[in-house]
Amino acid sequence: MIRRARAEDVPAIVAMLADDELGAQRETPDDLAPYLAAFEVIDTDPNQHLVVADKDGEVVGCLQLTVIPGLSRRASTRSIIEAVRIAAGERGSGLGSTMITWAVEESRRLGVDLVQLTSDRSRTDAHRFYERLGFEPTHLGFKLQL
Amino acid sequence: MIRRARAEDVPAIVAMLADDELGAQRETPDDLAPYLAAFEVIDTDPNQHLVVADKDGEVVGCLQLTVIPGLSRRASTRSIIEAVRIAAGERGSGLGSTMITWAVEESRRLGVDLVQLTSDRSRTDAHRFYERLGFEPTHLGFKLQL
Repeated sequence: MIRRARAEDVPAIVAMLADDELGAQRETPDDLAPYLAAFEVIDTDPNQHLVVADKDGEVVGCLQLTVIPGLSRRASTRSIIEAVRIAAGERGSGLGSTMITWAVEESRRLGVDLVQLTSDRSRTDAHRFYERLGFEPTHLGFKLQL
Repeated sequence: MIRRARAEDVPAIVAMLADDELGAQRETPDDLAPYLAAFEVIDTDPNQHLVVADKDGEVVGCLQLTVIPGLSRRASTRSIIEAVRIAAGERGSGLGSTMITWAVEESRRLGVDLVQLTSDRSRTDAHRFYERLGFEPTHLGFKLQL
């Protein structure tokens, strides 16, 4: 079941973010304060949709969908999928596909014209996964750390 | 001068969006209604910052900055730069660099940790431009048209 995330899900979400090749160096699951503060900001923003996959009360996946109004492409509304993670025990189960499909359908329901995401160039398995779901790797994604 | 866009700037912004190799097929500058409706949505969203470069009263550039709270990367706030366009007569003048630098500084002022953008893989000049400004092409950008 995919449902809206609640504050009490934050520890499980952060554990998933940290249980990842790239995330292990980036996250601080022992200090939840910044995550809980950010959760409040996300939760009160009507354009943010942070959801979890809930399997019998256990959080086994997460994803953040952001809706962005815009002028380009004939005033297209875009959505951006970020922070997709699947708990280690559920990888390969089809849950990732279920979650991305949910994000695409939710985007459609919200009037979105174009769904976007970026994936680290080292995550080649993820690239094949997104292409199988119909996404096209048309862009390069640039980042600048402040 | 870079300033917040106003409704009366929309025709000039759409003209710039359409005066572009990729934009020419995507935009409808003769039908401004959808753009004006989207402008209202953007203008009332506190996380959207649509700005124009104003040269003696003429709109010669535009850019949209979106602020996205998040949980990953120790609850980093991201900003996304979209719809960067420079009027034909101002290309090569350094205005693009001024606008991106503005977006980075505004992101810093807004407490953003990570500035992101995607650029069509065919825009190789743009890629060099963003790399000169310190952006790293670490990701692939996927899109799904709904």
